[in-house]
Amino acid sequence: MQTKRLGRQTVRLARPPSVVSFANIGGKMEGNGPLASYFDELCPDSFFGAKTWEQGESAMQSRALQKALQKGGLQPSDLDFILAGDLLNQCIGTSFSLRDFQIPFFGLYGACSTMGESIALASLLLDGGFAHLAAAMTSSHYCTAERQYRMPVPYGNQRAPTAQWTATASGCCILGAQGDGPYVTHVTCGKIVDKGITDVNNMGAAMAPAAYDTLAAHFQATGTAPEDYDLILTGDLGVLGHEIVTEFFLHDGIDMRHNYHDCGMLLYDLEKQDMHAGASGCGCSAAVLNGYVLRGMRQNKWQRVLFAPTGALLSPTSSFQGESIPSICHAVVFSARKEGSN
Amino acid sequence: MQTKRLGRQTVRLARPPSVVSFANIGGKMEGNGPLASYFDELCPDSFFGAKTWEQGESAMQSRALQKALQKGGLQPSDLDFILAGDLLNQCIGTSFSLRDFQIPFFGLYGACSTMGESIALASLLLDGGFAHLAAAMTSSHYCTAERQYRMPVPYGNQRAPTAQWTATASGCCILGAQGDGPYVTHVTCGKIVDKGITDVNNMGAAMAPAAYDTLAAHFQATGTAPEDYDLILTGDLGVLGHEIVTEFFLHDGIDMRHNYHDCGMLLYDLEKQDMHAGASGCGCSAAVLNGYVLRGMRQNKWQRVLFAPTGALLSPTSSFQGESIPSICHAVVFSARKEGSN
Repeated sequence: MQTKRLGRQTVRLARPPSVVSFANIGGKMEGNGPLASYFDELCPDSFFGAKTWEQGESAMQSRALQKALQKGGLQPSDLDFILAGDLLNQCIGTSFSLRDFQIPFFGLYGACSTMGESIALASLLLDGGFAHLAAAMTSSHYCTAERQYRMPVPYGNQRAPTAQWTATASGCCILGAQGDGPYVTHVTCGKIVDKGITDVNNMGAAMAPAAYDTLAAHFQATGTAPEDYDLILTGDLGVLGHEIVTEFFLHDGIDMRHNYHDCGMLLYDLEKQDMHAGASGCGCSAAVLNGYVLRGMRQNKWQRVLFAPTGALLSPTSSFQGESIPSICHAVVFSARKEGSN
Repeated sequence: MQTKRLGRQTVRLARPPSVVSFANIGGKMEGNGPLASYFDELCPDSFFGAKTWEQGESAMQSRALQKALQKGGLQPSDLDFILAGDLLNQCIGTSFSLRDFQIPFFGLYGACSTMGESIALASLLLDGGFAHLAAAMTSSHYCTAERQYRMPVPYGNQRAPTAQWTATASGCCILGAQGDGPYVTHVTCGKIVDKGITDVNNMGAAMAPAAYDTLAAHFQATGTAPEDYDLILTGDLGVLGHEIVTEFFLHDGIDMRHNYHDCGMLLYDLEKQDMHAGASGCGCSAAVLNGYVLRGMRQNKWQRVLFAPTGALLSPTSSFQGESIPSICHAVVFSARKEGSN
């Protein structure tokens, strides 16, 4: 089967790359959440043994990569490429985490869509025959994100009801030209969507139109519908964003209510942990995918998963200048079988 | 000819993508420099008609893309992908510039290596058959970079002799599966290299080891030597970094002195414009490539160019925390002929 462009945004992979290994790591809050048992490591120390939170985030990412390599019986030198990024200014979570690994590196910035973007590009590089093994990785950290985007944690800032909690987590997925699956069968690259939302405490509403745009493009290009997937998972829209996406599709006569979830609603017990609208941060969808989802697929819980993390491409500066929030969503299909239905 | 991995970092493209169109735009300083006549547009207004410098940088990037589309007789809808990024926190120069174009978008962060990284990935996507047309773009802006990385411009901060001047410039290169060249024949993906330099006013010294690492890997993988290229061009190492790279290679018995230049030394008249060690910023190598270099290749000035922009993957936060400067360099070969010698 030839690699085939389906519409403008979607590629059906001719040689679907296989998940070879994956790992995730979380912090204290993640360890108190309902997905705790799906983590490879939970570290109650928010510094991850380092001196600063930023260095801690790098250390966490390094450990996720090391763990994924170890679980796959691999060395850093086995990887042809790594595609990674994070939320920190200049993506220092990633550049410092990778400093000692000596792996050819393409740095990405897709905000919280990074896990989707990195898997999409890694899959295309593998399908194109440019690599045998490639890793996709990202992270986020509550304390580094609060300090950078909002207020330093010790300030004790009041959170809005629509606010989400940045996950302290990292996930790494190693894909290979060979393997026993799950396989990445389709990639849908997102476009920037900005419907004019300016409230930085309501990222779910800002990103929901991007998720809708990419998912709708994906369904149309592949001729599939929600029922063709066992699980559809957006990144970290949280409760409100999840509701908006569901409603958008209902307007189109498409019912997402049976199998559509959001990583931001899965990572924490929203009520018991007082998490308001849910989890967010690159590490949220990365940790949910590289634990709960891929373990579940290996245990035949789901055969076909549409994974579509979303990112809000704003900065504090753009918000101070009164700008709205451009968002993006990249989607990939994981399937237990090499061939998709299209 | 099959696409071939040469060593771990280098890919020889089986179907070398062609440059289809390119454009660049610069500001006042760039207009006073020796490459002024190689710009498509020079704008003396540092706001580019917008209200803030950040919005100005986005406007500049949009214009570079529009100009490249226009010169190629293309519409935004003709592009299958755009790969782009910039220096601003969360890459807002790019996300806001692309908001109205509706082009499938992969966001990159490679600091000043972004022009090399974006061309490398666009070329791989084209060679892999995933796209017919893909754009690679980046920008930088003196005023946004000073404010973010150093001091707000009105402060009148004293500059160190080793400091470089961030270019106010943007460049966009549209590559296609078909075209009359120049062609991208090889891609060498960089690894992070950090030799412990901590002086943020000496980026040239920090990035030179990364340039050396990638160029050495490229020469070895392709079995080429400096004399096989008409021009070898690093990104924005400036005077000092250029000297270090030249010296590193001399130690290996490789003489780079005949055809090796650096974009950071070409953009300005370093003495007359008082530019200290040279130009820097993503926009520097982007503007030099998408004007001086590609126009020169189309005029048969050079047949084979090795373009290797470098990026310093630090942030002000990492420097405040005493960290050294991880750097990277991505290299691509532009050739007038479809086939490289290897």
